[in-house]
Amino acid sequence: MTQDCIFCKIVAGGIPSNQVYADELVIAFHDISPQAPTHILVIPRKHISDMNEASPQDQALLGHMMLCASKIAADAGLAERGYRLVLNTGPDARQSVFHIHLHILGGRRLSGQMT
Amino acid sequence: MTQDCIFCKIVAGGIPSNQVYADELVIAFHDISPQAPTHILVIPRKHISDMNEASPQDQALLGHMMLCASKIAADAGLAERGYRLVLNTGPDARQSVFHIHLHILGGRRLSGQMT
Repeated sequence: MTQDCIFCKIVAGGIPSNQVYADELVIAFHDISPQAPTHILVIPRKHISDMNEASPQDQALLGHMMLCASKIAADAGLAERGYRLVLNTGPDARQSVFHIHLHILGGRRLSGQMT
Repeated sequence: MTQDCIFCKIVAGGIPSNQVYADELVIAFHDISPQAPTHILVIPRKHISDMNEASPQDQALLGHMMLCASKIAADAGLAERGYRLVLNTGPDARQSVFHIHLHILGGRRLSGQMT
């Protein structure tokens, strides 16, 4: 846990979240400012500030995050209609919380423009 | 290789691409319709149609794709300013090629709207 990281506090239970999934490596919860009917964040329990900081030892964790996102999307009824996974790094991508988080976005037809 | 999959053909060398990275598991090349100054696709050599089809045995491969994307973004000079990683599944996300591909988008300030 990193002091003053809001997502570390959510992992630790110090800040509530509308949680949809948890296991020993990741948790997932609804984004508080949804950009789509379904907007869920998958985050690792381990603090990783951004993708620049991810290292080869995080490979399994990152793959697990992707597989969890797919499963959570399916559980949310999005498998057939589809969904977008987004991971933002740094200012140009407007990363807002410096603890990596994988967005699951779906529930309506999304824009073809990803940028 | 899956017949008639354009990305399998690119992996096999039957269709040219502006390649920026290759290893035993993935290749990466510039998107032919870039949505940002840098727009690179990272794809597995293995054919996986979409994230619904990804299985636990693909965990390491998916993690490797993420780490490669981070390294390729850094090599493209995007580490400091940042970049967005996007993976689209199904019609609502406008998935166009049914062989998973991780978009790396950067080189300018991106929209806060991901959808």
